[in-house]
Amino acid sequence: MTIWLQRLERRATLRARAGLTRHLRPRRSAEEVIDLAGNDYLGLSRHPEVVAAAIDGLTGYGLGATGSRLVRGTTELHTALEADLAGWLGAEQALVYSSGYLANLGALTALAQPKAVFILDQHAHASLVDGCRLAGAETVVTPHCDLAAVVTALAEAAGRPTVVVTESVFSVDGDAAPLSALHQAAREHGALLLIDDAHGLGVLGPAGAGGAAAAGLAGERDVVVTATLSKALGAAGGVVAGPAAWIRHLIETGRTFIYDTALAPPVVAGARTALRLARKDDARRDELRQRAGHAAERLRGAGLPTTVPAAGVVSVEAADAESASAWAAACRERGVSVGCFRPPSTPDHRSRLRLTVNASLSAAEFDAALDVIVACAP
Amino acid sequence: MTIWLQRLERRATLRARAGLTRHLRPRRSAEEVIDLAGNDYLGLSRHPEVVAAAIDGLTGYGLGATGSRLVRGTTELHTALEADLAGWLGAEQALVYSSGYLANLGALTALAQPKAVFILDQHAHASLVDGCRLAGAETVVTPHCDLAAVVTALAEAAGRPTVVVTESVFSVDGDAAPLSALHQAAREHGALLLIDDAHGLGVLGPAGAGGAAAAGLAGERDVVVTATLSKALGAAGGVVAGPAAWIRHLIETGRTFIYDTALAPPVVAGARTALRLARKDDARRDELRQRAGHAAERLRGAGLPTTVPAAGVVSVEAADAESASAWAAACRERGVSVGCFRPPSTPDHRSRLRLTVNASLSAAEFDAALDVIVACAP
Ligand SMILES: Cc1ncc(COP(=O)(O)O)c(C=O)c1O
Ligand SMILES: Cc1ncc(COP(=O)(O)O)c(C=O)c1O
Repeated sequence: MTIWLQRLERRATLRARAGLTRHLRPRRSAEEVIDLAGNDYLGLSRHPEVVAAAIDGLTGYGLGATGSRLVRGTTELHTALEADLAGWLGAEQALVYSSGYLANLGALTALAQPKAVFILDQHAHASLVDGCRLAGAETVVTPHCDLAAVVTALAEAAGRPTVVVTESVFSVDGDAAPLSALHQAAREHGALLLIDDAHGLGVLGPAGAGGAAAAGLAGERDVVVTATLSKALGAAGGVVAGPAAWIRHLIETGRTFIYDTALAPPVVAGARTALRLARKDDARRDELRQRAGHAAERLRGAGLPTTVPAAGVVSVEAADAESASAWAAACRERGVSVGCFRPPSTPDHRSRLRLTVNASLSAAEFDAALDVIVACAP
Repeated sequence: MTIWLQRLERRATLRARAGLTRHLRPRRSAEEVIDLAGNDYLGLSRHPEVVAAAIDGLTGYGLGATGSRLVRGTTELHTALEADLAGWLGAEQALVYSSGYLANLGALTALAQPKAVFILDQHAHASLVDGCRLAGAETVVTPHCDLAAVVTALAEAAGRPTVVVTESVFSVDGDAAPLSALHQAAREHGALLLIDDAHGLGVLGPAGAGGAAAAGLAGERDVVVTATLSKALGAAGGVVAGPAAWIRHLIETGRTFIYDTALAPPVVAGARTALRLARKDDARRDELRQRAGHAAERLRGAGLPTTVPAAGVVSVEAADAESASAWAAACRERGVSVGCFRPPSTPDHRSRLRLTVNASLSAAEFDAALDVIVACAP
């Protein structure tokens, strides 16, 4: 008890010394900052049609789903959203979870079987890492986007059930995985490819169907796609899409599906409308990608070490955790909200600002925000 | 690929033979069934004030939180809900998660440390089991509600950091854990007690503050309480409540907190109003408990093996998985929705109907539902 608390205090002190203290900064509904930190890429979270659909969901079904999916939690909204997602992603079926985190845990633990090997990119999201851990499978972490290392790991796993696990667009640096090559390598070895399309969905591919679709992998029988509804769709929840046999397996055995309260009906209703809007808005998607490219050029032009954005995430390296914090704080003081990623939230112990493009900002606001970021650079 | 799918098909066939096929049954917004399956104990999910608050949250903040809690996801609604929860539960601080599942994973992985031992009740919820797995700590599973076994496990773990993990009201059978005795035993051994109060919150204790509060454990420095906002509060999301040092540790290091999109603002807003309503509605709580006792007596009187309900869950054993399914289907045909729990959703390989009391049903509906359940018994 007191011993536990003393241990916690000690660790907090160590974090503080390393510049790794974190603070929750509640935002108000009417805020004056320019948001280059959120993941609402297409600005759908506040779209009037999305809000109206969520209100309909609320008045029709109430706030909570009142149970797990197999008991009382499945409404007609859930199955309609799943049909829409499957159609959009070009998958045989889709299954909605209460978060992308639980979708990843569910997909990966369902893949666990005796002797399985998971091959995981070093920059993979925490939920993918935790999914591999929870699955209890042997996990080989390969250097970031290192195809040769994946091929070697596949060869070493020959004869064992193997899954290659990657993001389409990496959440921290916004760079793209070599999906086609990964799929080819996986297929040659009879392995599955699991693609977390969290940052590709709505942003990349035909009609925004995501990074997997952009790479021509939609509907492939050895591909499982996971994603979250919380980014370009401006909602919340997660999804796993793939062959029907696979989805049936998740419904009948997946712990994070079976033992979790279903996604709240208003969120489901809003996500459905967001999907419809995202699907048809190629213009906004073009604007998004153009802005991402422009932002990277502008920052690189100012001498800042900036990644090449594959979608809506641009990452700029900082010297260390403290200067990243100070940089983000200076931006905030001048009315620009940016993401500040420090260890342990970064896969390589380097700190950076993480900027996200929101296509619903005005071009003038967006440019002004870039000016502030450059001006505040350490 | 095809091998994977063939394996899945084979397992599906085995499940079908064992009567363990599961189906999603979407419900409509206007349904005619009497609901004895959901966890909306106080009927708050459709309460007009809850719906109105959620609409305010939607129009104020939009549908999704647009980011993780440390980046863009924390709104003033989140911190207000956390203050309300801490006040209600009598804890120093409270932290909201996007689900009870992720709250449990977060609380348990945060407790992991070298040489730690987790002592886990055999009936513990999947999210607690997964939390122990993910934490990678040595886990001793003790027979259900077996205090002596917990004391023995504590003695065997002497000198090692130990956590006793239990639910207050067990989700499957609705029975109560001996919380005071568990706490005393844990304290004697310098261990922590983690209480999942999912089915106690809003139902038990002073002002509905839960099973931990009912046992006089609110605010104890060696107790961590987790709960979900998806049951008596009729919303969605999870919470961890405990000493401030503890919550700080979760904010700064907890993966399921840091790397997950924040709970959607309308859900947060609705949950806050539901909390206010639940807190003051002792009358509805009394009605709930009276009905649970009445249901158990009625079923037992009809010769059905029924548990003694500690809160709103009543469980009736069935001979096997198939007869449980048939029983639930017969009830459904006669307009009563009941939970049907079969392996692997039951901790002891026995099948049962799980009935939940919803205090917002009329007394006549509730009694009619009990008649149907008795009439349909195999
Ligand atoms: C790549 C990736 N996967 C999964 C998730 C988890 O999704 P969610 O926030 O819906 O839990 C996120 C973001 O949070 C992410 O960036
Ligand atoms: C005891 C218990 N703990 C945790 C959970 C998980 O909560 P949630 O549904 O919010 O993920 C549930 C129910 O789903 C539960 O019954």
